[in-house]
Amino acid sequence: MDERAFQDYYPDDSAVCYGCGRLNALGLHIRSFWEGDESVCHFEPRKEHTAVAGFVYGGLIASLIDCHGTGTAAAAAYRAENRAPDSLPAFRFVTASLHVDYRKPTPMGPALMLRGRVVEQRGRKVVVAIRLTVNGELCAEGTVVAVQIPESMLAKL
Amino acid sequence: MDERAFQDYYPDDSAVCYGCGRLNALGLHIRSFWEGDESVCHFEPRKEHTAVAGFVYGGLIASLIDCHGTGTAAAAAYRAENRAPDSLPAFRFVTASLHVDYRKPTPMGPALMLRGRVVEQRGRKVVVAIRLTVNGELCAEGTVVAVQIPESMLAKL
Repeated sequence: MDERAFQDYYPDDSAVCYGCGRLNALGLHIRSFWEGDESVCHFEPRKEHTAVAGFVYGGLIASLIDCHGTGTAAAAAYRAENRAPDSLPAFRFVTASLHVDYRKPTPMGPALMLRGRVVEQRGRKVVVAIRLTVNGELCAEGTVVAVQIPESMLAKL
Repeated sequence: MDERAFQDYYPDDSAVCYGCGRLNALGLHIRSFWEGDESVCHFEPRKEHTAVAGFVYGGLIASLIDCHGTGTAAAAAYRAENRAPDSLPAFRFVTASLHVDYRKPTPMGPALMLRGRVVEQRGRKVVVAIRLTVNGELCAEGTVVAVQIPESMLAKL
C-alpha cells in the first residue's frame, strides 16, 4: 500500500491549502488514501475544534469533507488515465459546490473516519460522496462537486 | 444600532464554538449583526486561511456561512417572539445541513462580507440564505438549515 497520501503528491505550488496543504504550517494536514475503490481519511480534531462542549465543530467537518473530496477527485483522475500520482501534468481540483448533512452530533474524542466514493467523473468534473463516521456510527454525509483548478487560480502563483 | 453581535448573547456554556464562540481563544470569532432584515458579517481571513496562493480556503468560507447562518437563526427566533436577545430562555441553533456554491475564487486580502436572509422559519427550524461578496463581487452563495439545539447536545455541559 502506498504510504503517501493523495495530498503528498500535490505540486509544491498548490500545497499551501489550510485544509490539506503539507506546506501550510498552521493547517489541518488532511490526508487521504485509497482502500480499494474507496478513499479514506482519519482525522483527530484538535481540542479547540469544538461546537458546544463534547461535540465537533460543523465547519471542521465541512472542511474535512471538502479537502477529502478534492483529494479523492485528483486521485481518481490519475486512476482514470492509468497514471502514477507523481506523473505530470499534475491534477489539482477545487470545489464547485459542497453539501453536508449533519446526521447526528459528532462526539469529540475518537478519531473521525471519512470514506469517499466517486459517483460521477466526466471531463474536468468529479463528484465525490463522503460519509463521516465515529466508532462506526454515521455522523455526517456530504457531496463534493470538484473541478480541475482553473488557469486563473494558478496564474497567481 | 446594537454593537453587540448575535453571538455575544450566547450563554457562556454554548459560546465555545470554534467558529463563533467568544470563549474559544483559538477560534474564528465570527460576529453577525442585523442591518434591517439582513444579517451581516465581515471577516478578515488570517494569512494561513489560503487555498492556493492568493485565494481564500473554501472550508473557511463554509465555516463562515455555517456560523453566520446559525447566528442569524437565533437572532430571527428572538425577533419572531419579539424578545430581547438577552432574554431567557436563550436561543441556540445548530446546523442540520449546509450547502455552498463557490461561484468564483475568493481573493485573499480584502474583508469578506456575508449577507444573510431568513427564507423559512417554522417550529424549531430556520433556513438562512447567505451571499458572500468581496468588494461587491459575488464569490459564494450558501444555505444553512438551522435547528434549535437538541437537549442531547446540552446534556454534556
